[in-house]
Amino acid sequence: MQSIQWEKDQLLLLDQTLLPEETVFLTLSNIEEVWNAIRFLKVRGAPAIGMAAAYGLYLGVQYSQEESVNAFIVDLENKSEYLATARPTAVNLSWALKRLKEKAYQGQKQGMNIELIKKILLEEALKIQEEDEEICRKIGEHALSLFQDNMGILTHCNAGSLATALYGTATAPFYIAKERGWNLKIFANETRPVLQGARLTTWELQRAGIDVTLICDNMAAVVMANHSVQAVIVGTDRVAANGDVANKIGTYTLAILAKEHGLPFYVAAPLSSIDISTLTGKDIPIEERSEDEITVGLGKRIAPQGIKVYNPAFDITPYSLVTAFVTEKGIVYPEIAGQYACKLQKLK
Amino acid sequence: MQSIQWEKDQLLLLDQTLLPEETVFLTLSNIEEVWNAIRFLKVRGAPAIGMAAAYGLYLGVQYSQEESVNAFIVDLENKSEYLATARPTAVNLSWALKRLKEKAYQGQKQGMNIELIKKILLEEALKIQEEDEEICRKIGEHALSLFQDNMGILTHCNAGSLATALYGTATAPFYIAKERGWNLKIFANETRPVLQGARLTTWELQRAGIDVTLICDNMAAVVMANHSVQAVIVGTDRVAANGDVANKIGTYTLAILAKEHGLPFYVAAPLSSIDISTLTGKDIPIEERSEDEITVGLGKRIAPQGIKVYNPAFDITPYSLVTAFVTEKGIVYPEIAGQYACKLQKLK
Repeated sequence: MQSIQWEKDQLLLLDQTLLPEETVFLTLSNIEEVWNAIRFLKVRGAPAIGMAAAYGLYLGVQYSQEESVNAFIVDLENKSEYLATARPTAVNLSWALKRLKEKAYQGQKQGMNIELIKKILLEEALKIQEEDEEICRKIGEHALSLFQDNMGILTHCNAGSLATALYGTATAPFYIAKERGWNLKIFANETRPVLQGARLTTWELQRAGIDVTLICDNMAAVVMANHSVQAVIVGTDRVAANGDVANKIGTYTLAILAKEHGLPFYVAAPLSSIDISTLTGKDIPIEERSEDEITVGLGKRIAPQGIKVYNPAFDITPYSLVTAFVTEKGIVYPEIAGQYACKLQKLK
Repeated sequence: MQSIQWEKDQLLLLDQTLLPEETVFLTLSNIEEVWNAIRFLKVRGAPAIGMAAAYGLYLGVQYSQEESVNAFIVDLENKSEYLATARPTAVNLSWALKRLKEKAYQGQKQGMNIELIKKILLEEALKIQEEDEEICRKIGEHALSLFQDNMGILTHCNAGSLATALYGTATAPFYIAKERGWNLKIFANETRPVLQGARLTTWELQRAGIDVTLICDNMAAVVMANHSVQAVIVGTDRVAANGDVANKIGTYTLAILAKEHGLPFYVAAPLSSIDISTLTGKDIPIEERSEDEITVGLGKRIAPQGIKVYNPAFDITPYSLVTAFVTEKGIVYPEIAGQYACKLQKLK
């Protein structure tokens, strides 16, 4: 399932807010529609947001009537700024916009005309998507070398194909195993409070014919204790230089439970998510989100009015609980001291 | 908040299915109404079910027109059998009915007339409630000796006043601390999938003016890591002879997380919940419940149609993760070998 597709000069986007009840592809033909789709979480997952933004910026200038390259570039910059406001904190959003702008500057330097610059902008957007697919596939192949046929594997949140070009990160080995005729048994944590596991991960794995079982987050210890799962793999939002991992709330718990049961805990991490400038997990700010996500987010109120709520969206898993990172360039085990810093830096 | 009250020959029962949105006391004046209230979970929690059943049986014979004591006793036995079918697996239900029947047999032996037997049946029902209140209060006092003012304490599910005569078991120290002017900071796990923590525990603690914060189950590790809580206390459905604990799903995870963070993990256990005839946790059957509790239990469907679901309602926490049991007769620490068997048997 490719949740983002470029077809006939338009962007087709799977509306993730309607899943799992409805599978609706939005057809976006201008930049405002893309801004809305990003803002209102119709597209989510850092790589997917980056791709949507790249196509969105191209849509913004596709029919530009500017007469000079200089004016075209100014138009591009303004539209890039506008798109960046859709979700200002998503790193991949500004990263993708920057890649397109730099492509335009190069074209300008090389004396290209407006039509040619438009063409290389679209090529760059398509390339971002292609690269993401390739990165995910490589992560999947490396991760699969850690697993065996018929294993039970637990995952959390949605580091899946919906969040990327294809394959996902943590889910990539599941798709590649399926291609090879393996029969992995996936357990998906529902992932409170926003339920990305229940709504998205089960949906995409079920569609792909992969054996998936939904559990509540507080049942993970039971499927470990009764030997239903032999490994855990999750995605990540950011890896600090020492190997501390920021990921969806609940990840830290899973890492502790894996340790208690003697199971490996793997983190699928594209190199773009490894942030060498952040020294440790303590330096990663944790977003606290609205209490409504917990108290009324599921269609009806489940807690008294006025109750105090603590709702951290992410947690930090210390490097010492990570068995290995799986990157597109290979598997990274900890160094002797249990830290990852040097190895991760070398790869970047 | 007394969720069960006897008033003017009628049973007043707080309808727990309407919480936290509505606070409605049902007025039950016949045995059929009590049967329905138990069956449809308007009253829940093992001690509360036992109390409701005792009053229900009395309501069943309150206006009995039988002319002989023998016929009255047969009527009582039939009505007891009927009431036991409301929730056949709840141990406290049959235990309470048996207490009332034995009282009636004693009365018959002593030559009491029907009116006198009715009177001692009601007295016995009231006594069950009184005893439960006293047991909970003692558990609370013993538990409080483990805590200090201003501590943060984490609990799971609802082992609260709603499930007992008053005070609850795990929540009893919170109420007694409040009476003493202490300011404990309680964190309540929402307790997926049925949300007893979000719907019931936060509700009753908020009403009592106790400082309570709601979190999702997968946030417990974070409030431990950031030092918001210094101890965990939970209730139990059954304790095996060796100290293994059956309790609401999610309890085992909490015990592992407490160990990882060096925090004490306490189990509030009335002696009636200690089952010496069950040797270890492996001998306790774990009820698997409907997948709908997870996929559609929150007001709207949150997972795809046809998805596989695993939904164990309870888990087993091994004795080795329990710091101490808090009973009405005092605090029980493990023996040298880490097992509880002899100490628990001595108390019974």
